[in-house]
Amino acid sequence: MQSTMQDVPLTVSRILEHGRRIHGQSTVTTWTGEAEPHRRTFAEIGDRAAQLAHALRDDLGVEPGSALGTLMWNNAEHVEAYFAIPSMGAVLHTLNLRLPPEQLAWIVNHAADRVVLVNGSLLPLLAPLLPHLAPIEHVVVSGPGDRSLLDGASVQVHEYEELLAGKPTSYDWPEIDERQAAAMCYTSGTTGDPKGVVYSHRSIYLHSMQVNMAQSMGLTDQDTSLIVVPQFHVNAWGLPHGVFMTGVNMLMPDRFLQPAPLAEMIEREQPTHAAAVPTIWQGLLGELQQRPRDISCMKQVTIGGSACPPALMEAFDKLGATVCHAWGMTETSPLGTVARPPANVVGTEEEMAYRLTQGRFPAGVEARLVGPAGEFLPWDGQSAGELEVRGPWIAGSYYGGAGGENFRPEDKFSEDGWLKTGDVGVISADGFLTLTDRAKDVIKSGGEWISSVELENALMSHPEVAEAAVVAVPDKKWGERPLATVVLKEGASTDFAQLKDFLATKIAKWQLPERWSIVEAVPKTSVGKFDKKVIRKQYAEGELEIVELM
Amino acid sequence: MQSTMQDVPLTVSRILEHGRRIHGQSTVTTWTGEAEPHRRTFAEIGDRAAQLAHALRDDLGVEPGSALGTLMWNNAEHVEAYFAIPSMGAVLHTLNLRLPPEQLAWIVNHAADRVVLVNGSLLPLLAPLLPHLAPIEHVVVSGPGDRSLLDGASVQVHEYEELLAGKPTSYDWPEIDERQAAAMCYTSGTTGDPKGVVYSHRSIYLHSMQVNMAQSMGLTDQDTSLIVVPQFHVNAWGLPHGVFMTGVNMLMPDRFLQPAPLAEMIEREQPTHAAAVPTIWQGLLGELQQRPRDISCMKQVTIGGSACPPALMEAFDKLGATVCHAWGMTETSPLGTVARPPANVVGTEEEMAYRLTQGRFPAGVEARLVGPAGEFLPWDGQSAGELEVRGPWIAGSYYGGAGGENFRPEDKFSEDGWLKTGDVGVISADGFLTLTDRAKDVIKSGGEWISSVELENALMSHPEVAEAAVVAVPDKKWGERPLATVVLKEGASTDFAQLKDFLATKIAKWQLPERWSIVEAVPKTSVGKFDKKVIRKQYAEGELEIVELM
Repeated sequence: MQSTMQDVPLTVSRILEHGRRIHGQSTVTTWTGEAEPHRRTFAEIGDRAAQLAHALRDDLGVEPGSALGTLMWNNAEHVEAYFAIPSMGAVLHTLNLRLPPEQLAWIVNHAADRVVLVNGSLLPLLAPLLPHLAPIEHVVVSGPGDRSLLDGASVQVHEYEELLAGKPTSYDWPEIDERQAAAMCYTSGTTGDPKGVVYSHRSIYLHSMQVNMAQSMGLTDQDTSLIVVPQFHVNAWGLPHGVFMTGVNMLMPDRFLQPAPLAEMIEREQPTHAAAVPTIWQGLLGELQQRPRDISCMKQVTIGGSACPPALMEAFDKLGATVCHAWGMTETSPLGTVARPPANVVGTEEEMAYRLTQGRFPAGVEARLVGPAGEFLPWDGQSAGELEVRGPWIAGSYYGGAGGENFRPEDKFSEDGWLKTGDVGVISADGFLTLTDRAKDVIKSGGEWISSVELENALMSHPEVAEAAVVAVPDKKWGERPLATVVLKEGASTDFAQLKDFLATKIAKWQLPERWSIVEAVPKTSVGKFDKKVIRKQYAEGELEIVELM
Repeated sequence: MQSTMQDVPLTVSRILEHGRRIHGQSTVTTWTGEAEPHRRTFAEIGDRAAQLAHALRDDLGVEPGSALGTLMWNNAEHVEAYFAIPSMGAVLHTLNLRLPPEQLAWIVNHAADRVVLVNGSLLPLLAPLLPHLAPIEHVVVSGPGDRSLLDGASVQVHEYEELLAGKPTSYDWPEIDERQAAAMCYTSGTTGDPKGVVYSHRSIYLHSMQVNMAQSMGLTDQDTSLIVVPQFHVNAWGLPHGVFMTGVNMLMPDRFLQPAPLAEMIEREQPTHAAAVPTIWQGLLGELQQRPRDISCMKQVTIGGSACPPALMEAFDKLGATVCHAWGMTETSPLGTVARPPANVVGTEEEMAYRLTQGRFPAGVEARLVGPAGEFLPWDGQSAGELEVRGPWIAGSYYGGAGGENFRPEDKFSEDGWLKTGDVGVISADGFLTLTDRAKDVIKSGGEWISSVELENALMSHPEVAEAAVVAVPDKKWGERPLATVVLKEGASTDFAQLKDFLATKIAKWQLPERWSIVEAVPKTSVGKFDKKVIRKQYAEGELEIVELM
């Protein structure tokens, strides 16, 4: 039987037109570092998004389906680009300004961005890169910054405000197939080339509905959201598209991401919600300890990107701002889990344990755990496996088959189309995810998995251990076994046998490392994470002094 | 550019599997009228939905695409049918037990229901009808009731619990195109035959997400929803599908819809939310005035079906339960508007005025007002036109081209596919809808519309007027003009000229009726509404004594 429902595609232009019309009085406030922040209503954002689309089509010749780069902070102009570019049928390509310049150049060339929208304050980053960005023909500059940096560049340079001036404030948005591309974002790719994830109109629309569900972020037009997570980082966790749908006011920090201005904007603008990675909150906490301010306006603080330390969560609880964990990745749009404790533990001692998990899957995200032998594992809070996910806002491939020469699609996608997240963890019977390791760092020992992170945490709880990194090394009998590399504190007197005995009080016996090495320091990546690739290489090349304790 | 997102259809089986797995501990509580209500967890509902699907396929031979009728109250078994039937690829056809029996029979025959699921308590309604329900081959009975009423019926009779017993508790749900039929519901049709609205998996999934948005019902697994609005009435406003998605507990009154048991279940089960039409709340209010109980557990009361009288809203406010207006129809799944006041009026004198409107359109419902000449009207709170809506959970046609011989699709759907709601009203600049009339009752006078309801309300505010009904009558010069029929209170001394002068203080001069008639009583429909068809006929046939005041 056929349904009698209308066939209306889920498109970004519908979010835009809904928000500007129904929530026209809601505002996007951009911090300027001056006496007053800059405010623009959703109605004005709607007018200007239409003007931007006219300018891009008529003045710059942007065609449907082509990618446009944005190299911008979180601000009203970036929100306008978020809506104008997908709504006109082009593809919003957010560029991560924290990437090494050569990776940024690789990405712009791979996506073939003909146009880049840039904040004036980021011209010192863009200008020297331009000669390496072959496809770029037009640079559109908004906000303060020294334009002379572009002198002599072989591109056409436009002023954002001049382009918009006088253009019509409405646009006859094309009716787009909801499965067409709307936006793209490259993963930073610790191994191999960056990989492009291309969001569809459908995925953005559904993800936006999800963001607004009471069980998720649960915001309304009574709220103001301080969006610290960058718009170049997985669409700022889907917030700008999502909150425009329901009239949530946006507070945008632009380039003022330091603890002091963040504290000031919270006190002055009274956001009810904020979203950022833990390091931002750690900095803010330090600032508040030095210069106390009332931040209890923030009923809810969404933390993602990496796990939130319990101490940080408790500190914010004391300040009256409830932290809510969320997990996701570029490939998941990104909302994959949200850690709202279930009704039966609220107010009990278990509540904090639930809040410290990665959270529960929302409707629309299906999950399964796959064990070392490819078997599906039970949700018992014990069985550790790689997390695989499926859903309408989850990637099933990468743009242009990308990923570099060594990229094998079967490493990232299952035969039946699920995303292999590369994260290893357990799921409780009531659907809460706890991640314990990255799949590439897990030790595959005789058909069982040993978490390197668990061993590291146990080792680092020893009073004389400064740092410890555990990696998998080849083993004839077991396939892989753990190697423990340990940095001792000054004056430490412990030996390997004592360390192993200590570990045995915390970890199952079969998981205890046989191979040990004292090192001066654990090698780190540019963002400060343990660089286990390097350790494995040092071991393979015999550069580590190994003691074996069988 | 193609997106790289997975293509995962939005299906009812995904809501079911999500709810049973992630929210397995949430409950459906059915009132029994006995000492204890009956409780079932979402996990159990999931098991039993799978068992029901096995029984329907294997024992009753139900094929994908075929319609199955349910003649049931709100209870756990009806929720199981809500999920099992669409998930297996069949079509859930909820039968309105309040309809006249001949209309019910017409509907079963039109939908060709081969199977009907019925509550034992409704066998007195079904049994005498059965001989007129040609397609029905199987009757499945659940709950208490006299089975002997079915003795001698030429159908196979099954016990619900016996069918389920021993069946597998999981089912390999088919992957269904999200645009396929999932459920159907006939409009009661005041004119012409009933018309079938067929919901798709997509429309139910999207509507469910919308129900859960913070700006809409905004419930979480911390909530319990008392679902009084019948499951046979537009899928109980989408609540069962919607709240299963997020683990909201359901409190189901079964056949206990009288004020006293409703008051008792609120006090005992402490729901945080409830949904019903105004008459239910009026009855409850009377009950509470006689036997006061604490109902402040209900943070939110959703009222729809018809406008909520201000006095009722204020009475519930005083009891600590906030009433929220919603508007919709069978053709809109039904959530079309929700009356949450915008942020800028909360706490001001304007708040109540906003709450008394029909509400604001959620994302996913596009609206426009069409004036007498087919022109689109501005959203200025003044221009009255017929409301047309568009969206993925809004009907674009009727089942089987139905509607009877006199049905013309162009009366219900615009050329570009929007639904003509038949409701006339205004929309404010900030998107709040106020309905003033049914399109068929509005007076089309010289290219302008006069609201019959507005004239009636103004007339009925006169101290000597008991009732007043206003209808359109043909007029040579203006096309149509209003005729006022008035019932005076006993001993009233006012005359038409005085009434017209009184009206002139409240209504624009050009809208004042020229034709007046004193009547004994206003003719009414079976549900107590003014029957304006009859008045127009009485006028046309010269049965009314008319006084003309030019």
